[in-house]
Amino acid sequence: MSTPSAGLAGIIAGETAISSVGKEGMGLNYRGYSINALAEHATFEEVAYLLTRGKLPTQQEFTAYQKKLLSLRSLPDSLKTLLELMSASSNPMDILRTGCSFLGTVEPETHEHTQLDVCDRLIALFPAMLCYWYRFHKDGVRIETQLSNESLASYFLEMLHGNTPEALLRQVINVSLVLYAEHEFNASTFAARVTTSTGSDFYSAICSAIGTLRGPLHGGANEAAMELIERFKTPEEAEEGVLEMLAHKELVMGFGHRVYRTSDPRSDVIKNWAKLLADSVGDTNLFSIAERIDQVMQREKHLFPNLDFYSALAYHFCNVPTLMFTPLFVFSRTAGWAAHIIEQRELGKLIRPVAEYTGPSSRPYVPLEKRS
Amino acid sequence: MSTPSAGLAGIIAGETAISSVGKEGMGLNYRGYSINALAEHATFEEVAYLLTRGKLPTQQEFTAYQKKLLSLRSLPDSLKTLLELMSASSNPMDILRTGCSFLGTVEPETHEHTQLDVCDRLIALFPAMLCYWYRFHKDGVRIETQLSNESLASYFLEMLHGNTPEALLRQVINVSLVLYAEHEFNASTFAARVTTSTGSDFYSAICSAIGTLRGPLHGGANEAAMELIERFKTPEEAEEGVLEMLAHKELVMGFGHRVYRTSDPRSDVIKNWAKLLADSVGDTNLFSIAERIDQVMQREKHLFPNLDFYSALAYHFCNVPTLMFTPLFVFSRTAGWAAHIIEQRELGKLIRPVAEYTGPSSRPYVPLEKRS
Repeated sequence: MSTPSAGLAGIIAGETAISSVGKEGMGLNYRGYSINALAEHATFEEVAYLLTRGKLPTQQEFTAYQKKLLSLRSLPDSLKTLLELMSASSNPMDILRTGCSFLGTVEPETHEHTQLDVCDRLIALFPAMLCYWYRFHKDGVRIETQLSNESLASYFLEMLHGNTPEALLRQVINVSLVLYAEHEFNASTFAARVTTSTGSDFYSAICSAIGTLRGPLHGGANEAAMELIERFKTPEEAEEGVLEMLAHKELVMGFGHRVYRTSDPRSDVIKNWAKLLADSVGDTNLFSIAERIDQVMQREKHLFPNLDFYSALAYHFCNVPTLMFTPLFVFSRTAGWAAHIIEQRELGKLIRPVAEYTGPSSRPYVPLEKRS
Repeated sequence: MSTPSAGLAGIIAGETAISSVGKEGMGLNYRGYSINALAEHATFEEVAYLLTRGKLPTQQEFTAYQKKLLSLRSLPDSLKTLLELMSASSNPMDILRTGCSFLGTVEPETHEHTQLDVCDRLIALFPAMLCYWYRFHKDGVRIETQLSNESLASYFLEMLHGNTPEALLRQVINVSLVLYAEHEFNASTFAARVTTSTGSDFYSAICSAIGTLRGPLHGGANEAAMELIERFKTPEEAEEGVLEMLAHKELVMGFGHRVYRTSDPRSDVIKNWAKLLADSVGDTNLFSIAERIDQVMQREKHLFPNLDFYSALAYHFCNVPTLMFTPLFVFSRTAGWAAHIIEQRELGKLIRPVAEYTGPSSRPYVPLEKRS
């Protein structure tokens, strides 16, 4: 038996061939390809193919894959009914978790509807689920989700805003989807692997992952970061506010990382895009506020921004409502989760640790009527 | 860094004060009380109180708790709509996972609707969800779920069968609920803790747990055990069949355990009750078949029956459809999951292990059009 480690920090829970995380802030690779190259050159669809099929697609394979994803954008009628049933005030992560769970009853995983079919369907359908629910309750419309946009980035923005999205916005959303797609044994992926390890189905594993990503110490951090940035009117106010938070030992979201020690290699990439967007929309304030928070955190706590911090700002400039930031993370990470579910199944091993008992020692049962 | 352990077998993933598992098949305790004493004397409701509140209730506390549970049995109308929407052929575990997820949008966890409120509501409502869905699709009736049965065992059986259940059946279901209520860091509980560790909500954690329990290497084993027992017409046929399975290296469900080494202390308890039921219903065959499978497994593989094996038979004699065996596990284990969610929250630590990378080394990205 090893000694207990709260949170399994640094404990190797298994092997993976899907991604490698350079601890010093360099060298995050998806199946050997550097995240920088992928973020610069690849579409999210290529990355999703790479993660779920284990290799980058040829032109022919890519065309077929894209065609398949495009064909999977129609919501079943019963799922539409469910989305209309869930109130406007619901947490969008609950919408995705429930929609995914429900789809598992409509289109269960079988020998004919394989794990890759379920995976492709979920990647194609999550944006439709979210936007159908959102627009129904916000605008009172039942949007058509079977659109022909080539990329998921464009597809999502068009459904959300009801018009053809600008190239820059499509580009930024695409990059963010590439950056968010996979990250080794993070908590949501690990939860999906634990669920998979009992022999459960694909939908169950994705539901576990969504529910785990929802928390502010994981995917929820990008929403928390935006709320923080928006709390201040000027960089000076931000500096003062963050110093005060630190004095009160409050957690500042979007900084530091369980695995990275010196920096998050994804942060610089998305920060550059956030800056481009800031200039493009004529922002004179939010980006400066974010940069100041970043400086204060580096100076006071030696903590670097992680992917969530500047992603929040980028999404904001793309006119994505804050409550959709973590759902966007779901759209992308579904590819990584799927790769890990498939890998865990090949391993076929139950994940079941043990605990160190710290409770009361043996004591006799006293019947209810004699208890005081 | 420790060395990798596939499945975290024997790895201490944290501390718990909720239960202790005697590795040698003795001494499973819930908060210090032996499982044998609890199974002999306690109601499931007492055990649920013990697990979720940390102590056995006084008479007054118990009366108040029971009254609260009784008041929580009405299904929201929108949840009824959802249950009617999910087809008769759905996996009942998917019904519970989806129902739980949906309830998270109807009655979200808040400062007013606390974790214990959500926990009590789910314990009260899971049997109603399952039986409402089942009877609607099987019998075309919309059952009333706000019944006044004191115990969950009686409540479940009455909704399922539409009549007042016999004392022996109520007793056996109660014992099985006590036995299934809690078991340290099993996979579903561990999944709930991983989800909780990111700061996510109660419903998300329970959804992760349900989805994880669903697999045949965990909760699904009781259903698999029943299918096995029913496959044979005589003990001799069973012996032959199991020997053949073993020769083909097929997994025989309901035997062995990741943590117990010599026996499962819960198995003898439920086996005795299964025998009583067998005699009571005049069974002349199934119990003998089960015992023979048990003997063959002990003789050939030195594997002992775990809780799932004879539980399956007990449920069968209570006229519970096989597909409800794992859902019954959910009704009970929700108490244990809740206790672990509460404990994990107090710890407040992200569960995030690392992986050992075994994939391709760094390789250059080749643009799509140049790939072959």
